[in-house]
Amino acid sequence: MRVTDFFDPDGIAVIGASKTPGKLGNDAMTNIRTYDGDVFPVNPSSEGSVYGYEFVDSVHDVDADLALCCVPSPVVPEVLEECGQAGVGAAVIFAGGFAEMGGEGAAFQDEIASIADEYDITVLGPNTAGYAIPHKDLYGSFVPRIREVGTGNVGIVAQSAGVAITSSFHLTREGYGVSAMFGLGNRVNTEFADVIPALDDDPRTDAIVVHVEGTEDVDDFLAACRESDTPVVALKVGEHDIADFAQAHTAAPAQDNAVYEDGFDRPGLVTVSSTTELIDTGRVLADSPTPDGPNVGIVTAQAGPGIIATDYLKGTGAEFPDLTEETRERLDEILPGITYTENPVDTGRPMPEFGEAIDAVARDDNVDIVLVYEIYEDSLGYPVDELEALAEEVDKPICFTVAGPDHALEDERRAMEALGIPTFDTPERGAQAVAALIESVSGDE
Amino acid sequence: MRVTDFFDPDGIAVIGASKTPGKLGNDAMTNIRTYDGDVFPVNPSSEGSVYGYEFVDSVHDVDADLALCCVPSPVVPEVLEECGQAGVGAAVIFAGGFAEMGGEGAAFQDEIASIADEYDITVLGPNTAGYAIPHKDLYGSFVPRIREVGTGNVGIVAQSAGVAITSSFHLTREGYGVSAMFGLGNRVNTEFADVIPALDDDPRTDAIVVHVEGTEDVDDFLAACRESDTPVVALKVGEHDIADFAQAHTAAPAQDNAVYEDGFDRPGLVTVSSTTELIDTGRVLADSPTPDGPNVGIVTAQAGPGIIATDYLKGTGAEFPDLTEETRERLDEILPGITYTENPVDTGRPMPEFGEAIDAVARDDNVDIVLVYEIYEDSLGYPVDELEALAEEVDKPICFTVAGPDHALEDERRAMEALGIPTFDTPERGAQAVAALIESVSGDE
Repeated sequence: MRVTDFFDPDGIAVIGASKTPGKLGNDAMTNIRTYDGDVFPVNPSSEGSVYGYEFVDSVHDVDADLALCCVPSPVVPEVLEECGQAGVGAAVIFAGGFAEMGGEGAAFQDEIASIADEYDITVLGPNTAGYAIPHKDLYGSFVPRIREVGTGNVGIVAQSAGVAITSSFHLTREGYGVSAMFGLGNRVNTEFADVIPALDDDPRTDAIVVHVEGTEDVDDFLAACRESDTPVVALKVGEHDIADFAQAHTAAPAQDNAVYEDGFDRPGLVTVSSTTELIDTGRVLADSPTPDGPNVGIVTAQAGPGIIATDYLKGTGAEFPDLTEETRERLDEILPGITYTENPVDTGRPMPEFGEAIDAVARDDNVDIVLVYEIYEDSLGYPVDELEALAEEVDKPICFTVAGPDHALEDERRAMEALGIPTFDTPERGAQAVAALIESVSGDE
Repeated sequence: MRVTDFFDPDGIAVIGASKTPGKLGNDAMTNIRTYDGDVFPVNPSSEGSVYGYEFVDSVHDVDADLALCCVPSPVVPEVLEECGQAGVGAAVIFAGGFAEMGGEGAAFQDEIASIADEYDITVLGPNTAGYAIPHKDLYGSFVPRIREVGTGNVGIVAQSAGVAITSSFHLTREGYGVSAMFGLGNRVNTEFADVIPALDDDPRTDAIVVHVEGTEDVDDFLAACRESDTPVVALKVGEHDIADFAQAHTAAPAQDNAVYEDGFDRPGLVTVSSTTELIDTGRVLADSPTPDGPNVGIVTAQAGPGIIATDYLKGTGAEFPDLTEETRERLDEILPGITYTENPVDTGRPMPEFGEAIDAVARDDNVDIVLVYEIYEDSLGYPVDELEALAEEVDKPICFTVAGPDHALEDERRAMEALGIPTFDTPERGAQAVAALIESVSGDE
């Protein structure tokens, strides 16, 4: 299988392309327009053109090595066979109605599997919303507005394309984006174990975000994660019994989550339990230096949210070391009489010296990771200059938790993130990111 | 104590008011300008005016019944005594440096407690960022931009003003707002048990959101919650040992969380474990009808996120009833051959019939609460018309989980919320809101 075909197709056929807005074959055409290469809408019942591309009758008439199949499930085997005969090497099959339906659907899926095998076609799906590579303006998907997903350094591979999409939009909402996004669906022959190495090889991907309901190839999946030099974070759904629904969704087998959790108990791999944690962990693993250990130094301008973060972290592998004598002396100089000079350090209010306090804690030899909480004040802003110096001189993760009206702090948030300092809008999101960093360096070697 | 003095002050003295931007006494003046009544900046060292208000030398020279004390802790006792002599009935004390510091600070706090007692002054704080009542444009706080907090129907009372503020901004970011927001700080004589009944009596407050680190008056606190006709949701911090930090913050005593959790195990009261859940639960309790029971009907346009929500809910008190024969027949008519007609109902993709599917499930007698997940598509929008009919005709909570670019779905999100249908931007937030609704009707009577 050559998943890389999806990254660099040489000509794309859109089979079942349509002029009618709202139809899947039209939505797919809408999205593929930005692709920098030949696009061929294939539909024997249509004449003229769609978005300036001339309709053709058959995939035999075109020079394409990727097909986006926008046809209903009963037609898919025939279409895929034609693709194979025409030399198309990769296909995205959007339609549902295969293994997830059982009965006739399962038979259809077996049929397309054997056609794919016969002609050596890499198939994404069936039963997927497709994939997207924003930095190439390449959107092999029918999802409206998918072109609004931002470009970034987090790669997503999800069993459910719905989760891939909602996570991509969520990353975009946070000012981030994706390097590539794949919805696997029923995985006829493109599995986690195919996409994860491709993302690991992709120089634009600095963290791999995985959503899994269940796969027959657990060993291959875990091996791919283990062998990845790029850190991997996974949301394994199914803490409780959701077997019927998951089977009916992407034909996912019922499995004990422990298999995945045990497999992820090693450096570089992290498991989470919500989509928010999934994207936040992706962000922090992509942008932060690898911490040396679990020792967290907390600096807050308002203790209340800092206590919430501390409380959360105490339930994880985090440690709260004493600060060195040197740091405490420096803090005493910077902030005479501040409310709390132990770790956590609390200044009680944002103040001009806040950046220096972060600096003191970040340079403390006992501290591996810094977590900051500060409500935004216009007259002070965020200590971007101090953080810039720290980011250059100190190779430790700093997570910055913000609060205030979005529009007020947006610019400085983005400035911090450009320095590799991820930001979070609630205390527990900041704390969860720190916990993920710690998990990423713990576990069996 | 008359907490109501904070709601309707007749003249406000700002003691320690300043012309210098960035000073606390200037920030407080900035915020109080929108108050529709007399404002008196009090500062014997200042001349002229600030924001058009003439400085006066002493609180004796003014006719005010609320004082915002912007002076450092050592001066507070003297200032409070003057307030008492001048007949000021209520005061907000911003400064820290009292009981949370121990030693001399604790002595200062004892002193102001006895002055407050002698002159019968209702004191908010010390060690607080104050309070806000947006619908009255009344901001007794030094927090910059607090005037951007939206007006809404959620009342907040937080031990940490920092948590009150970050939660208020978060609610605003979600398109909601607060009816009133109080940061208690060190609670010299204004306690949870004073503010909660005031919010319960406030016709603009439909849910009360509480943040508590620990209070000596647990019994009064729990009694106030129990006696409230308005639903109450609490975030009790301190699942782990954070006693030192909390003591140093708001002089909170170390306490076993079980006391609070047991006390909240009754209808109308809900506990949560994050600030996001806190505000989401506030929203859903404020806007939704009370459900008849724990039976959840789920309708999804993309199964993956729906499975995540289902998985989460299976770990709570939620039940997933079979749909009635009538509903299933109706679903078969509306959506022939849809992917999954059991509960959860999954349509596989947004479609024009999606609103009808929600309608069928919401009208099912076996269903008490409806949870919906749908990625936004421009050509379909969200089924606002069908939801409007449902909101009028069916007295059941509907929680709607959205996905897509914010700006695309913003209008329809707000339209649904205007119907009393709260919306959420991740599957687990929607699921948590449903779990909170179920918790609000369970527990001991």
